[in-house]
Amino acid sequence: MDAVTSHATGFAKALRAMRDALGADNVLTEKLEDHGDPFAPAGEWYRPGAVLLPGSVEEVQAILRIATEHRMPVWTSSQGRNKGYGGGAPRVSGDFTISLRRMNRVLAVDEENCMALVEPGVRFFDLYDHLRATGSKLWMSVPDLGGGSVIGNALEHGVGYTPIGDHFANHCGMEVVLANGDLLRTGMGGMANAHNWLVYPHSAGPSWDGMFSQSNFGIVTKMGVSLFPAPEVYAPGWFTLKDEAQFGPFLEALRPLMIDGTIPNQPMIINAVCAASAFGERTRWYDGSDPVPEEVLDRIAATPGFGRWVMRFALYGDAPVVAHNRAKIERVLGAIPSGAVTFDEFDGQDLPELTNPHHRVQAGIPSMALDQMTRWYGGEEGGHIGFSCAMPIAGRDGTAIRDLARAVLTERGLDYSAAIIVGKRSMIHVALVVFDTKNEAQTRDAYAAVKAMLEPAARLGYGEYRSHLDFMDEVAALYDFNNNAQRRFAERIKDCVDPHGILSPGKQGIWPANMRRH
Amino acid sequence: MDAVTSHATGFAKALRAMRDALGADNVLTEKLEDHGDPFAPAGEWYRPGAVLLPGSVEEVQAILRIATEHRMPVWTSSQGRNKGYGGGAPRVSGDFTISLRRMNRVLAVDEENCMALVEPGVRFFDLYDHLRATGSKLWMSVPDLGGGSVIGNALEHGVGYTPIGDHFANHCGMEVVLANGDLLRTGMGGMANAHNWLVYPHSAGPSWDGMFSQSNFGIVTKMGVSLFPAPEVYAPGWFTLKDEAQFGPFLEALRPLMIDGTIPNQPMIINAVCAASAFGERTRWYDGSDPVPEEVLDRIAATPGFGRWVMRFALYGDAPVVAHNRAKIERVLGAIPSGAVTFDEFDGQDLPELTNPHHRVQAGIPSMALDQMTRWYGGEEGGHIGFSCAMPIAGRDGTAIRDLARAVLTERGLDYSAAIIVGKRSMIHVALVVFDTKNEAQTRDAYAAVKAMLEPAARLGYGEYRSHLDFMDEVAALYDFNNNAQRRFAERIKDCVDPHGILSPGKQGIWPANMRRH
Repeated sequence: MDAVTSHATGFAKALRAMRDALGADNVLTEKLEDHGDPFAPAGEWYRPGAVLLPGSVEEVQAILRIATEHRMPVWTSSQGRNKGYGGGAPRVSGDFTISLRRMNRVLAVDEENCMALVEPGVRFFDLYDHLRATGSKLWMSVPDLGGGSVIGNALEHGVGYTPIGDHFANHCGMEVVLANGDLLRTGMGGMANAHNWLVYPHSAGPSWDGMFSQSNFGIVTKMGVSLFPAPEVYAPGWFTLKDEAQFGPFLEALRPLMIDGTIPNQPMIINAVCAASAFGERTRWYDGSDPVPEEVLDRIAATPGFGRWVMRFALYGDAPVVAHNRAKIERVLGAIPSGAVTFDEFDGQDLPELTNPHHRVQAGIPSMALDQMTRWYGGEEGGHIGFSCAMPIAGRDGTAIRDLARAVLTERGLDYSAAIIVGKRSMIHVALVVFDTKNEAQTRDAYAAVKAMLEPAARLGYGEYRSHLDFMDEVAALYDFNNNAQRRFAERIKDCVDPHGILSPGKQGIWPANMRRH
Repeated sequence: MDAVTSHATGFAKALRAMRDALGADNVLTEKLEDHGDPFAPAGEWYRPGAVLLPGSVEEVQAILRIATEHRMPVWTSSQGRNKGYGGGAPRVSGDFTISLRRMNRVLAVDEENCMALVEPGVRFFDLYDHLRATGSKLWMSVPDLGGGSVIGNALEHGVGYTPIGDHFANHCGMEVVLANGDLLRTGMGGMANAHNWLVYPHSAGPSWDGMFSQSNFGIVTKMGVSLFPAPEVYAPGWFTLKDEAQFGPFLEALRPLMIDGTIPNQPMIINAVCAASAFGERTRWYDGSDPVPEEVLDRIAATPGFGRWVMRFALYGDAPVVAHNRAKIERVLGAIPSGAVTFDEFDGQDLPELTNPHHRVQAGIPSMALDQMTRWYGGEEGGHIGFSCAMPIAGRDGTAIRDLARAVLTERGLDYSAAIIVGKRSMIHVALVVFDTKNEAQTRDAYAAVKAMLEPAARLGYGEYRSHLDFMDEVAALYDFNNNAQRRFAERIKDCVDPHGILSPGKQGIWPANMRRH
């Protein structure tokens, strides 16, 4: 029996056992499109062999027992909605995948401490609906698209746009199923009757949470996530910058406002293409098939409310504090040549129905409206992948990565659509490479363009903060300090906690011993 | 040759090799008092066999090579100043200890991003002096006593009292020497020429930092630590509460002020004994040898500036914001029966010389003045150990642990001195058990009293956040979820990353395989 036949036999046996354990309805072998890489060329890479839908921790443990017995790896996603990075697809096509969508309970909302305990299948929409249905006044944090998993987003170091928008930093406590089926609770959850699991992040001893983020060492089945009290005033703001030459000075002016907390949320800075893409297709601005030229960018930028760069941000808090910070921001950013600041203000205690999707997302209200951005090249089947690297909030860094991304994309005939997400001391520059998934050549160009940016960015000193399945090995290889010490350490831990290589082989470039190729 | 002789021979051989590697001056075998548990009964537990003083990463690596060759464990401390938890002493008396005091360079101060890169021997005093000597205007965060290591404090989840007072949460990037001598840099330091190591805390892949805190998996040799811009106004405040019955309602009123950021720093709430101890000895108030009785506590509480409970806290920021938050705090906390709020205000941009040690510590200025607290029972040789557990900021939790600690201490004839350190969503109740180290019976009572609190606290649902050497095993055992899943996982990782059990055996109850007794 050759290796392929042996694998097929093992897979078939495991599949039967999975059906016995979960019930046939919870083991999918067809119509798996919603569980693969949503944007890859049809029929190509990154498809699951079967999708497993456990409904409980015990069923997750049962899956791992079967997977271990048959030496069949399982890839895990919570909702599989990180579409720009491969969705719920496995790194190795044909592998089993676990989708945690059925584990979708909001287990607790602690009004006093502004925390929730959720399962990984809980989407931002679900948590929001739960809060409103139960009469909670608390606000939550959401990314631009609300269909993803609250836990999955945090584990991948995803972000939202409220003052608690650094989702991983604002979690507290995890429950993790290890590869051998053992159950670990981190932080104060290490105590069986803990009275403080969701409020204090450590225990006595090492803090484990970080190693279960962006990794394949365990399956997170519960997590505490932060909420926040409704502010007296919610004041979303815009900064528009008409002159590209002021991009660097703008970032220099922004940094101190972030570090001292004048701007408390996570702003997003988008360029003209990205801003325009939220409102409609490319053909509204340009008919050529070459990248949108400078004069068109200037035409977009000259449109009221637009700019070469536009920053979305918001203030939250007591009225006098918001008023002071608003005036300060108007003074500082308003002084930048060609820059303009505008604000809206809402009663945070009695929020009206918000229609602007940007206003909604910064108030933690889930939405799918911004999915429009991916349809820049037309049709209903827009795709996007992200080239996403971290850097200081600084003119020299912002312009360096802008110039690099723009040059690589232009060379391949693609538009440079940028969304820069700003934190307290760093910003993630996302080159949101959008394409028409029905255009196979353009799709391939988009994937290739992102790959082509990785090494030049690394030479400048910028590492990806996250990566599409298709580039995980390349990204890991570029973390090259001391002969790839991070990857070597990750492999050592992998061999220890998952010696049979059952959990998500290849995730973030971490392969089990029997699959390593470097 | 029996085991004891064999160990002695191995130790002697290793000692010679250590002298060859570090130079005889950097291997201490006598006058080791400053490297042991400073408060244990003389001649008793927790003494190093020899102290190693490496001056560089390469020398740390050399030590680990020798230790591995001779199978001689090395305990590591940075400065060894966490005196209430055992100082620099090893869990196993007679072991080698590494003191990182010679690695005391401030490697970089990034004024733009408000970060510093330091070595583990850098004390709070050293970093402060460096900032002032180089003309930096940045502020830093310090604990009550400034003689400890900036890195060591953060790694032990120690705290300061500024808006960046959660020191572990406010670090970014680590360099770690692993047991096998390999060198790992976490976060963006995983890239050899990283341009963002100190501003973005993750890399692509797992985040390792947490597992190197309160653990024995590596020796941290560099860390990025946060600083913050000098505020326009610095307004340290006091809240005094005369009526013990209002302690619970006070905590209930405090919680929302912490969660919404009205109070941005980490307040410390101390009881009457703790407050009095900062100003002088016990005999000023009471001559009896029994615990200070209620009427004396009320007499202390009635003294101007004192209370049954006193909270130290501070505001920082632009003048209008500080003014608003000050008025809000005065309104909310001032409404608590028997409560009173007072503030001082200073020009943060041109800070005068501060003489009040509480004003200094909340401005991030290191001091040793509060060491006075340990001399409550008289003499110059006061000791203290901490019973320190984490809980929500809530009346029911605060009163439960107060009542427990007070009852256990009273039963043993000791005063209940409490310092509660408040974070955004949690507080650490420290029963600061002070004693006269020259009084052996009292010293033994103090250690025994803390041990006696552990299990009752765990039954209530509160785990220690940190522990003295003498209780590490007991504390680890009380993290009992799923048959001590945290300890079992830690042991598995220990066996993987340190198979010869070289690094700090027994720290936080984590023993190498050949020394496990449970």
